[in-house]
Amino acid sequence: MAAPVTWQELLAEKKQRQLDAIPKDWIVAVPSDDVLDVTDVPASCGLLTTKELGITEMTDIELLLRKLASGELSSVEVTVAYYKRAIIAQQVVSCLTEIFVDKALERAAWLDEQLKKTGKPVGPLHGLPVSLKDQVAIKGLETTIGYISWIGKYATRDATLTEILYDCGAVPFVRTNLPQTIMWPETYNLIFGRTLNPHNRKLTSGGSSGGEGALLGMKGSPLGVGTDLGGSVRIPASYNGVYGMRPSCNRLPYEGLVNTCEGQDSMPSVLGPMSHSIGGIKAFMKAVINSEPWLKDPLAIRKPWDEDEYKLKHHGAGGKLVFGFLWNDGAVLPHEPIQRAMKMTREALEAVGHEAVVDWVPYKHAELYKIMRAIGTAVGQADYNAVIQLTGEPLIESMDGNPNSYALVTHKGELSAFELWQVHKRRQVLRKEYLDQWQATATTTSTGRPVDAIISPTAPWAAPPHGKNTNADYTRVYNALDYVACVFPVTKVDPAIDKKPPPHQFFSERDESAYNLYDPEVFKNAPVCLQLVGRTLEEEAVIGMTEVVDRALKAHISRHSDTP
Amino acid sequence: MAAPVTWQELLAEKKQRQLDAIPKDWIVAVPSDDVLDVTDVPASCGLLTTKELGITEMTDIELLLRKLASGELSSVEVTVAYYKRAIIAQQVVSCLTEIFVDKALERAAWLDEQLKKTGKPVGPLHGLPVSLKDQVAIKGLETTIGYISWIGKYATRDATLTEILYDCGAVPFVRTNLPQTIMWPETYNLIFGRTLNPHNRKLTSGGSSGGEGALLGMKGSPLGVGTDLGGSVRIPASYNGVYGMRPSCNRLPYEGLVNTCEGQDSMPSVLGPMSHSIGGIKAFMKAVINSEPWLKDPLAIRKPWDEDEYKLKHHGAGGKLVFGFLWNDGAVLPHEPIQRAMKMTREALEAVGHEAVVDWVPYKHAELYKIMRAIGTAVGQADYNAVIQLTGEPLIESMDGNPNSYALVTHKGELSAFELWQVHKRRQVLRKEYLDQWQATATTTSTGRPVDAIISPTAPWAAPPHGKNTNADYTRVYNALDYVACVFPVTKVDPAIDKKPPPHQFFSERDESAYNLYDPEVFKNAPVCLQLVGRTLEEEAVIGMTEVVDRALKAHISRHSDTP
Repeated sequence: MAAPVTWQELLAEKKQRQLDAIPKDWIVAVPSDDVLDVTDVPASCGLLTTKELGITEMTDIELLLRKLASGELSSVEVTVAYYKRAIIAQQVVSCLTEIFVDKALERAAWLDEQLKKTGKPVGPLHGLPVSLKDQVAIKGLETTIGYISWIGKYATRDATLTEILYDCGAVPFVRTNLPQTIMWPETYNLIFGRTLNPHNRKLTSGGSSGGEGALLGMKGSPLGVGTDLGGSVRIPASYNGVYGMRPSCNRLPYEGLVNTCEGQDSMPSVLGPMSHSIGGIKAFMKAVINSEPWLKDPLAIRKPWDEDEYKLKHHGAGGKLVFGFLWNDGAVLPHEPIQRAMKMTREALEAVGHEAVVDWVPYKHAELYKIMRAIGTAVGQADYNAVIQLTGEPLIESMDGNPNSYALVTHKGELSAFELWQVHKRRQVLRKEYLDQWQATATTTSTGRPVDAIISPTAPWAAPPHGKNTNADYTRVYNALDYVACVFPVTKVDPAIDKKPPPHQFFSERDESAYNLYDPEVFKNAPVCLQLVGRTLEEEAVIGMTEVVDRALKAHISRHSDTP
Repeated sequence: MAAPVTWQELLAEKKQRQLDAIPKDWIVAVPSDDVLDVTDVPASCGLLTTKELGITEMTDIELLLRKLASGELSSVEVTVAYYKRAIIAQQVVSCLTEIFVDKALERAAWLDEQLKKTGKPVGPLHGLPVSLKDQVAIKGLETTIGYISWIGKYATRDATLTEILYDCGAVPFVRTNLPQTIMWPETYNLIFGRTLNPHNRKLTSGGSSGGEGALLGMKGSPLGVGTDLGGSVRIPASYNGVYGMRPSCNRLPYEGLVNTCEGQDSMPSVLGPMSHSIGGIKAFMKAVINSEPWLKDPLAIRKPWDEDEYKLKHHGAGGKLVFGFLWNDGAVLPHEPIQRAMKMTREALEAVGHEAVVDWVPYKHAELYKIMRAIGTAVGQADYNAVIQLTGEPLIESMDGNPNSYALVTHKGELSAFELWQVHKRRQVLRKEYLDQWQATATTTSTGRPVDAIISPTAPWAAPPHGKNTNADYTRVYNALDYVACVFPVTKVDPAIDKKPPPHQFFSERDESAYNLYDPEVFKNAPVCLQLVGRTLEEEAVIGMTEVVDRALKAHISRHSDTP
């Protein structure tokens, strides 16, 4: 057989290989395209046993980890359960890239054996299947990140994160989809297609870690790892109704990931976990940080997990917290369901004695957006072209085939190094001003401390239709500031209550077009999440505070559903 | 009087103001230019009282701090003592820029009053005079950094470091000289002239923090702060025989400093302390870090001082340390006095049971030098030109007026942002490889740990004659790797023992010209220091290990001087 030579041939061959990687008896009858909510397919399709269904429905990842560590559940049975569910997800929302069942099960079996032999779990994530965005290299597997030109690029070594996950006893079991170039808040590429939102397949899964988002939305993985340069973990976490965290730069080891725009050190992409509970986020962060990633990744910050910070020692031990509520960014007003989620969260927090009433001023956000845009477009298409020219594959310039809807953000001219430095200079000034603003809130709170965290929308909307996700400002502003942010679920779009309001005084044309986009029926069933934002390198405290908010929200919801 | 308009007029007026800032009765009779070693002028000139001489001869800064905190010494008397000595230094080696006696003494008096009133020191550096490189902005003072064009640029606020020093109870009392553009390892500019080496005025003070180096060499300050982008703290510390530390990027707050090449985030300059004892370095680092600089500087890393790391918990509690000795970098062989210092240090360490025998391989140092050069020259002269064009002042292109001797390193063409990214990419690969090499040394040590620290020359020579300091490779390689490095004194050039060896097999023309530069009589009396190099963000452990080396060396020297 002759080696494939054109990009079309490469593509066809790779697609076939992906299909062939799915065990034949895991192929299920899929609902027709007009079935929008496919989250119940795993339960209804019959592929999973009752026990497997039970395993994959556990949202308490710490409990799952305890059962794995004690041997009450074997890694093989947990991995099989999640693998089946991931393959079901793949068939309804196209969320996977690399599928490697045998390799994963072999590792799970080895872990089970180790536990039996030594009586001790291999590490803090013993036996847990972990899904990884396609960037996270695993030795022996291809890492195309959606580029046809990189088909056949087999990793000769593991990424640092992969190594650490092995040390922690985890089972990397699938890799997940992302957009070509990775520079999109949606998920579509020519190899692995478009990833759909499992809650409503007419809506986007978000991006760039949309494969993770959709997979987790299907409960096809207990813990996933994405990357976030402008919201790429938080947007898909939010659109698919799961928890997701953007740590500060270099708190987690990025070393060895395959990436777009490598060498762009102005605002680096970071790893971030996604899971069904804040406990899953914590388990991952603690495990990876305690593995001393700085001994493997020269950029990883030498900063051990700080249990005192997690217990909120700098935030009054969590006794009474003051949250700054960013109701809108002064540029685009969030849709009704987002505003409702903000109000719910405020009420939930106030009901348990927290002070949630400070309104957070979006200090020079518009300028911070510009800086993110300048960095993102600094080299025009030079980086993308260097890859696609290898085979002549097309550059995807819009997410829905219509370049007018939302074009790939590039820049005609490249910046010079000197011009880029001027952007950095301005950014530094803005970061200092923002920090000073935050510190100054100490005079406005009843605790004497500055505001403990910001509560903010993750986007002006819940997951919009494909091609319409044209605004990542609500997430990327915190990348510009290098703040830690954690997404938590609040509610879902409910056309019965989330009516379209009358037009407001629009901030701008963009605001008006955002208003026009909203139609309760179109957004029906889309999850609504918010993000809690803390300071740079405050990962532990952000997790601790998100737990507080999460508990308050759950209590609030259960109180209200108890009301007759 | 008409305002000055030409750069020549601005210059003359500023020089006069500097002269006028010196109290008339602090003008001393200076030795003639052929007196090379001027370190005894403070003791011989008669300006200092016996007590003041005693204060300024105390090299144990922690002891000085205890005396200040207890009120045994007042801040005013200590500040006056050091100020007089600094002004003497200025008259013999031209090390100062801004002189503000009244302001400093007013603050010292306030601190004394506070101590009397409250019985408690204001902070961990209570009462201590601290000298600052000209970059560190102090509200109300000019910050020219040696540019005529920036004469009259009065700071409207303090740098974050200045604020923190105030919080810590310190007394900023002088600012110190640096080269125009700051991109030189020597110290000369048109406003403040050339800073000379107090041990031998025909030799350079080093740079770019050469003002600090020479001032400390004269014991005109107990603690100084410089900045280090390629060795700018370590080179002058080394050439003037004092301790000096280069922390990792953003461990200390750089925010608010006036700088050259602002926005160059590829390899940022860092703050670093210089002092007469490792205790001075520790006192400064601990005080500044415990002030939580991340609440003032958005880039400062949220990482509290770690006393356990200082006690070497990751280095076998200091019981038996393994040092990798970098005898040479494979490019330029260090001069005889440097080699002797390396051997002394090895013997000193072995004598107290440490394992100092591992030879450290200079892993791809040549490539790391190239990367530092590419970053340093990325924008050609664009940044410098933006400043000098304001008045038309000349750009200094050599340190001794002879452009053939050592020209300002610039680059004809500017890099594009994309080209700069490719440099970053390569650097990241090299940093990973270097880390892996270091980790791999665990198999070669008797402790089972990787080598604990590297002992390395700070330059291939002791302070060379003015204009001849053409090599910063031995320091800047650790900037490229972002390693922590601390300079410690070992010996001085002694023509009686540091004979010129016969020519060796030269690595290169540069090596040959370095060899040719050496003449024991020319380098006579120049201090010889080395640096101890630890991992990224290992400031505490590097201080702890430097203490170990320092103690071993002092014991070694006292043993040998006891021998009849």
